[in-house]
Amino acid sequence: MILLTRRATFSASHYYWNPEWSAEHNEQVFGRCANRNGHGHNYTLEVTVAGEPDAVTGFVVDLKWLRDVIEREVLVAYDHRHLNLEAPEFARTIPTTENIAIAAWNRLEPAVTGAGGARLSRVRIYETPDIFAEYRGEA
Amino acid sequence: MILLTRRATFSASHYYWNPEWSAEHNEQVFGRCANRNGHGHNYTLEVTVAGEPDAVTGFVVDLKWLRDVIEREVLVAYDHRHLNLEAPEFARTIPTTENIAIAAWNRLEPAVTGAGGARLSRVRIYETPDIFAEYRGEA
Amino acid sequence: MILLTRRATFSASHYYWNPEWSAEHNEQVFGRCANRNGHGHNYTLEVTVAGEPDAVTGFVVDLKWLRDVIEREVLVAYDHRHLNLEAPEFARTIPTTENIAIAAWNRLEPAVTGAGGARLSRVRIYETPDIFAEYRGEA
Amino acid sequence: MILLTRRATFSASHYYWNPEWSAEHNEQVFGRCANRNGHGHNYTLEVTVAGEPDAVTGFVVDLKWLRDVIEREVLVAYDHRHLNLEAPEFARTIPTTENIAIAAWNRLEPAVTGAGGARLSRVRIYETPDIFAEYRGEA
Amino acid sequence: MILLTRRATFSASHYYWNPEWSAEHNEQVFGRCANRNGHGHNYTLEVTVAGEPDAVTGFVVDLKWLRDVIEREVLVAYDHRHLNLEAPEFARTIPTTENIAIAAWNRLEPAVTGAGGARLSRVRIYETPDIFAEYRGEA
Amino acid sequence: MILLTRRATFSASHYYWNPEWSAEHNEQVFGRCANRNGHGHNYTLEVTVAGEPDAVTGFVVDLKWLRDVIEREVLVAYDHRHLNLEAPEFARTIPTTENIAIAAWNRLEPAVTGAGGARLSRVRIYETPDIFAEYRGEA
Repeated sequence: MILLTRRATFSASHYYWNPEWSAEHNEQVFGRCANRNGHGHNYTLEVTVAGEPDAVTGFVVDLKWLRDVIEREVLVAYDHRHLNLEAPEFARTIPTTENIAIAAWNRLEPAVTGAGGARLSRVRIYETPDIFAEYRGEA
Repeated sequence: MILLTRRATFSASHYYWNPEWSAEHNEQVFGRCANRNGHGHNYTLEVTVAGEPDAVTGFVVDLKWLRDVIEREVLVAYDHRHLNLEAPEFARTIPTTENIAIAAWNRLEPAVTGAGGARLSRVRIYETPDIFAEYRGEA
Repeated sequence: MILLTRRATFSASHYYWNPEWSAEHNEQVFGRCANRNGHGHNYTLEVTVAGEPDAVTGFVVDLKWLRDVIEREVLVAYDHRHLNLEAPEFARTIPTTENIAIAAWNRLEPAVTGAGGARLSRVRIYETPDIFAEYRGEA
Repeated sequence: MILLTRRATFSASHYYWNPEWSAEHNEQVFGRCANRNGHGHNYTLEVTVAGEPDAVTGFVVDLKWLRDVIEREVLVAYDHRHLNLEAPEFARTIPTTENIAIAAWNRLEPAVTGAGGARLSRVRIYETPDIFAEYRGEA
Repeated sequence: MILLTRRATFSASHYYWNPEWSAEHNEQVFGRCANRNGHGHNYTLEVTVAGEPDAVTGFVVDLKWLRDVIEREVLVAYDHRHLNLEAPEFARTIPTTENIAIAAWNRLEPAVTGAGGARLSRVRIYETPDIFAEYRGEA
Repeated sequence: MILLTRRATFSASHYYWNPEWSAEHNEQVFGRCANRNGHGHNYTLEVTVAGEPDAVTGFVVDLKWLRDVIEREVLVAYDHRHLNLEAPEFARTIPTTENIAIAAWNRLEPAVTGAGGARLSRVRIYETPDIFAEYRGEA
């Protein structure tokens, strides 16, 4: 079995805010991330699929197809967007790196698993070069 | 003469929008950057000072001092901020990479030039690893 | 158990071409990679061995020895080479990132496993910083 | 389950030397690393914790807390230090990358495991960009 | 004046060979680069333009326009190509990093200089992360 | 004219200490760098030569020759060394990044300038990815 990974990047805004808490409590828990004007990141998304290379093409999946899946399922929704305001999964869920990893998995998994013998194995999100979260699905 | 450089990073939101234009014209010129919800980046700021190393310390400037100057003059104003909404220099000027380089120079130059024999030589801003702007002052 | 990794780089040419297909079909499947003149990459190879650090030296394996194994088993055959034309394993197998990971494993595994208590655990090949394949052997 | 990682860096000196061996034997085994004057590296430490994101905050752990744990448990002891001479765990154990990974795990594990529902999952140490060791505990 | 830079990458093959020399002399001068099967690299191209930011847009040049210029003038000719065999400027000139920098300048300069107030200032080519050449035109 | 650059790395120890000052004053000025046990870095050295590409080879200088010059003139003296204790130029001069840049220039300049039509143009030293000094000679 081979793990094949493709990276993509997107630039987005977000903030951390719990509407059931006071401003003071939000600032105490979330620090500078609680600024309601938002701040942003160049996120890096790593998508890993697992499978056997095809005997003829040598492909686990076609990387051009995988690029298009990532574009269509994730980047259209997240790139140059405000995650809290524009991505429905973050309307009531705080877009931490952890939750973005889960959301990206949920967006990608149906499209990848339906395609030939490969399956989605791992999604990793870098918020900065020094902070990243990884999700491998519920199973 | 030695050129001594220190890098710092900050995460900020911005958008590109000219209030004198229609929404259509803003989108035509600025593309996805015209989204009024904002989007963001992990910016890298490179600050270069020029001078002679001190004969005793070997320092052009003390890098701990330079770190504090960058923090106080730039990062407090830009990090985890929305540049259009929170930095006064971008209230009516669009925060392109080019303009952020000029604004960071203007913030840093008085603090650096007043300090010993060194002078500010160059400011570089990376919006992404693939796009950066450099300013060396007006002279 | 410790996983100890050493990276190396090599520069090589390749193309993607199935001689049983027409030129049109090759171009349809492989796109620009079907150019028979070849194109190339700076590949990065990551070799990971697993084992216990020796109680005296603190080494899982001697990294100088591992560097020499990588040089002798992989780099001599791949660096500054055309993979399709010069590496026998790619005479009839397309040198995709996936297949290069398997081939590098097959070249390294006998040399590494025969050496003390360590075993080859993982081989990763980066074709570009954004595309990489990982193989952990058949077991 | 999410794997959440934070990176930190530290600059330290070390040498490789077994006092029970002759100078010649030390140089034969350890090469240039046997220089008793020491040499140094910019180490990168990656600390990975595993857990479920909190339903309200979206945090597996608070990354500001994790930064402080890394600072207090590892960086105070290793950064701008000579590992052989100043870190007690290397008084008689050679500070190879492998052994630093184990020692950093041992320093971090009690502090991380005692904190909420998360547990320490993985510690990775880069001695250079091309050499790194990973430890996941004894279990 | 601002220096604004955009990076792009391309993957290409090349070899170093002087047809007026014997094989032995080519190998003596060019080493492993003299392999006529070719080898390849992931090149990084940095294109720097100089100018004043427009008072309204804040742009020295539109970076989307610059991306398209780089694509049309350089990448179409070099990406996934064999430089010696497919780029006419290297039919009799050896595609060293130095000569690729000059050739990229010559391809870009007419398109950039004809566009508004900016001018091409600098072209840099990285053959690997450790080797790069820079050209600023003849003047 | 072309600027051609080659990077190399070395790992070394150093400390900052002025023997004419008290320990307290050294610590006040140099902070953690005043630790007499030393600490260390993975330094990156960038050596830039300027010249015209040879009409036949396309080389400003032979990069294999430049690699050997860097090895012989700088790396033998600095790599896996304690700069204060083993490099004579730092016996009484503090090995700050600034002073290492000057010292590397002085080591390289005679060897490079004596070789064909090229001249040493620039030496850059990275102490960490975030701190670097550049020297272009006295002229």
